[in-house]
Amino acid sequence: KVAVVRSRMRKSKSVRELVGEAEWAARVDLAACYRLMVKFRMTDLIYNHITCKVPGTDDHFLINAYGMLYEEITASSLIKVDLEGEVLWAPEFPKGLGYKFNPAGFVIHGAIHAARPEVQCVIHTHSLAGMAVASLKKGLLPMTQTSMRFVGHIGYHDYEGPAIDLGERERLVRDLGPHDALILRNHGLLTTGATIPEAFNAMHRLELSCKTQIAAMYDEFRSDVRLKDIAKPMQNAIVAAEDHQFFKHNGVDVKGVARAFVNNNSGKSQQGASTLTM
Amino acid sequence: KVAVVRSRMRKSKSVRELVGEAEWAARVDLAACYRLMVKFRMTDLIYNHITCKVPGTDDHFLINAYGMLYEEITASSLIKVDLEGEVLWAPEFPKGLGYKFNPAGFVIHGAIHAARPEVQCVIHTHSLAGMAVASLKKGLLPMTQTSMRFVGHIGYHDYEGPAIDLGERERLVRDLGPHDALILRNHGLLTTGATIPEAFNAMHRLELSCKTQIAAMYDEFRSDVRLKDIAKPMQNAIVAAEDHQFFKHNGVDVKGVARAFVNNNSGKSQQGASTLTM
Amino acid sequence: KVAVVRSRMRKSKSVRELVGEAEWAARVDLAACYRLMVKFRMTDLIYNHITCKVPGTDDHFLINAYGMLYEEITASSLIKVDLEGEVLWAPEFPKGLGYKFNPAGFVIHGAIHAARPEVQCVIHTHSLAGMAVASLKKGLLPMTQTSMRFVGHIGYHDYEGPAIDLGERERLVRDLGPHDALILRNHGLLTTGATIPEAFNAMHRLELSCKTQIAAMYDEFRSDVRLKDIAKPMQNAIVAAEDHQFFKHNGVDVKGVARAFVNNNSGKSQQGASTLTM
Amino acid sequence: KVAVVRSRMRKSKSVRELVGEAEWAARVDLAACYRLMVKFRMTDLIYNHITCKVPGTDDHFLINAYGMLYEEITASSLIKVDLEGEVLWAPEFPKGLGYKFNPAGFVIHGAIHAARPEVQCVIHTHSLAGMAVASLKKGLLPMTQTSMRFVGHIGYHDYEGPAIDLGERERLVRDLGPHDALILRNHGLLTTGATIPEAFNAMHRLELSCKTQIAAMYDEFRSDVRLKDIAKPMQNAIVAAEDHQFFKHNGVDVKGVARAFVNNNSGKSQQGASTLTM
Repeated sequence: KVAVVRSRMRKSKSVRELVGEAEWAARVDLAACYRLMVKFRMTDLIYNHITCKVPGTDDHFLINAYGMLYEEITASSLIKVDLEGEVLWAPEFPKGLGYKFNPAGFVIHGAIHAARPEVQCVIHTHSLAGMAVASLKKGLLPMTQTSMRFVGHIGYHDYEGPAIDLGERERLVRDLGPHDALILRNHGLLTTGATIPEAFNAMHRLELSCKTQIAAMYDEFRSDVRLKDIAKPMQNAIVAAEDHQFFKHNGVDVKGVARAFVNNNSGKSQQGASTLTM
Repeated sequence: KVAVVRSRMRKSKSVRELVGEAEWAARVDLAACYRLMVKFRMTDLIYNHITCKVPGTDDHFLINAYGMLYEEITASSLIKVDLEGEVLWAPEFPKGLGYKFNPAGFVIHGAIHAARPEVQCVIHTHSLAGMAVASLKKGLLPMTQTSMRFVGHIGYHDYEGPAIDLGERERLVRDLGPHDALILRNHGLLTTGATIPEAFNAMHRLELSCKTQIAAMYDEFRSDVRLKDIAKPMQNAIVAAEDHQFFKHNGVDVKGVARAFVNNNSGKSQQGASTLTM
Repeated sequence: KVAVVRSRMRKSKSVRELVGEAEWAARVDLAACYRLMVKFRMTDLIYNHITCKVPGTDDHFLINAYGMLYEEITASSLIKVDLEGEVLWAPEFPKGLGYKFNPAGFVIHGAIHAARPEVQCVIHTHSLAGMAVASLKKGLLPMTQTSMRFVGHIGYHDYEGPAIDLGERERLVRDLGPHDALILRNHGLLTTGATIPEAFNAMHRLELSCKTQIAAMYDEFRSDVRLKDIAKPMQNAIVAAEDHQFFKHNGVDVKGVARAFVNNNSGKSQQGASTLTM
Repeated sequence: KVAVVRSRMRKSKSVRELVGEAEWAARVDLAACYRLMVKFRMTDLIYNHITCKVPGTDDHFLINAYGMLYEEITASSLIKVDLEGEVLWAPEFPKGLGYKFNPAGFVIHGAIHAARPEVQCVIHTHSLAGMAVASLKKGLLPMTQTSMRFVGHIGYHDYEGPAIDLGERERLVRDLGPHDALILRNHGLLTTGATIPEAFNAMHRLELSCKTQIAAMYDEFRSDVRLKDIAKPMQNAIVAAEDHQFFKHNGVDVKGVARAFVNNNSGKSQQGASTLTM
């Protein structure tokens, strides 16, 4: 049933030549975002996904091949699917590796992309700190300046099991609501963004918030109540949509982060960069 | 008493030439698995072992030389032993290094290989999070989607001291039962697999489960009871053998993981890969 | 309004040639200090700042461009501003990157530089352990030899929200007092120094103190009361200004730390070093 | 007063040529041991010391220059001192670096070397987990197979302040007793060995024991009491001197560990190895 359109011209034309400039740029950004998950230790081997919309389309999405480590993902390796999870394009992987698309993994992402057309990118993680906070009844606490950015701007979705049916898809979308962050209870974290950097920035802050909470929350003298002492107008500003935008839009340049990371680790700036955009 | 058959032709023939293709592939996978333990920080210097059966045999096993760091292990460096711990083949290590086989270290592995012929690979660790959970009376909690995979599929073996006698071997096998994971109380973790990737995948999940539990379990509001809210049919599916296979068989490509790791760290993909399969 | 003096001779003259020897040395040290934050995992992406005074001036300061990762910062990339946050000099960044000065980020630093003329360097972090201790009512405990160096030598500033007005600037300076360390409650850490190495050394010890406290403080049997058992004269010596200088002035050679780090990671000492001072 | 014998022939003769073969081997092992502290994250910048006796002497010791990072230490950079802390030989460090010997840092080491002539190597650390356990009244718990090796084989020394006088030296030696491990309360860890690998191996196990305890000890259901269930003869064996030797003498090859580490990080085995023994 899956209509795979494999490029027969692969040996003569690179993926970069085959796709438009905007799709290529999205592919590079998305590959960089996968590498950032490695840098910030938010990966779970080959599991989880980060998806982004192909620019200029409403229902074409880029996603990782199931079986590749995040360390290995390049712009050309990303598979293109539609909202129903049908494969529109996939590269020919080296003989013997046989990477495929994982339809089950697209269910959560597809549900959000269908319900929230302004979202370009969805990130889902099984990070250690994220799963730990996701297993606490009280969830994320407004303990620090970093975490209070999520107060009133994060959803919670109760765990229903490893599979996800149509009914749960609706509850998932309802629980995310208009927010850009979601705690999947007993499971992990999820963020969205109008751009890839925005979704990454939200995830980085959410992860740092979870790590800090795990480090400090055992203490009976934890002082997140101090936030109540902030003058009321300031409190309102913090949770107001406008102020929230402040946090949202000073997004990090995701390409810069991945470039620096790759360069630092390989000790070869030119080769490192070219590997990423290969 | 140990019958060491050392290759006299070593200078003219490499290990790769001496062994069959299937044994060589198993050696590369096993060496990669040792490297993965380094990547995921589950090593304890030169201690512990990962063993795998030589393909096509019932009672020949590959194991690490005692004294080599996991970072140093290559396909050719692995020693071949039988179920009684007799050395069938060992490489000639460079002068002055004098690596030997550690019979005491094979006792746990040998007991499991003898009792569970379908098991091809056994991994035992002294990881920080693993030892921490192994020292808790209640053991591993079904706190997350990651850890609940082990509910009903993990054994517990009480600590009896650093040595292991015939009586304890029987209790060890009894405590593992039909499972692919075992918590050695006050000691560490152990997983098995019908393939090396399967055993690694089980260990990676068990380790991540332990890390998450350690991070979150101090909290009086921990919500693993929420799993009870999952609809009964789903719960049954989770613990059912069939569903368990789902988790088991979407195993990571262990060669891919090690390849990417070695490449990332050396900054030289060709050399890195060749080092691993040397 | 911002008077940016961009060098029109950039292609012909390097920053090193344009500035005096003392400013160049300060730029290299400051760039090294940014890299040290990476090495010791005290960064928060592109956020936070480390500032230092331009030698020979009272009111010229060097600061990072907003958008660059700490891993990317070089001596030439640093922007020069005055106490009011007016840009005096900025490099021409590569096309498309568009890094700018972040006036909001200079508010805390500017307030301290204005009030404490003997301070040459201010470091502010959002580290995990720092934010965790900053969220505890009792703050930093004199638990270890490392942390007791701060007893009586550290200020606390209550959180007032993400923005900072003139009134809070005064309270910030008051709360820092004559100390070289400040805990910004629910927010992060801050240290100062008469040199860059001194400020770094203070931050390194404060961070290590926070990490240790987080690791041990859950325990009902924590023994920081033992410090009370120290003979009174010794206690007095510990908190006395003179003794405090002992801890302050055996500062690490910040260039050495960064040099070793860069060399270790790139595997190429020459290139690594030249990248840092580029 | 310090009689520094600087080699005037340095440009013509390397340190390796100037010293005997046995001293050179000890220098390489000691440099490797400093690097291992980096690998296992037990360093505190330029602080702390590892000392070893010069083979064939009773009162000559090798120690790190104060100001060098552990990452930078090489066999040739080590300073030679006597029991009174007089410098017998020091290299000429590159111009501007001015590394010196830190007599204050030798006080603890000197006291132990004077009182325990069979000890060849002393390691002292300010590791995070070590300081955390050192701040707990109950100290190290027999929670795991790894930590029970220290039961009955470790001393505790109460904190008396940053300086150390003759009276404390005696108490320090008394508190260490015949053991090879000492917890310096509110301060850090210390181990000794009849060889450098033995001291390193003891420190690695002690550090891992501390880390595991910190991870698990918050739990009211911690089960170190289970060790009481071990059959009495086994318990006796565990704490008996003979059995203790088992743990002591299966020491890791410290050169191998450092070699693998340097190679992994530089991606250049030859250069990496030569840097270490430079």
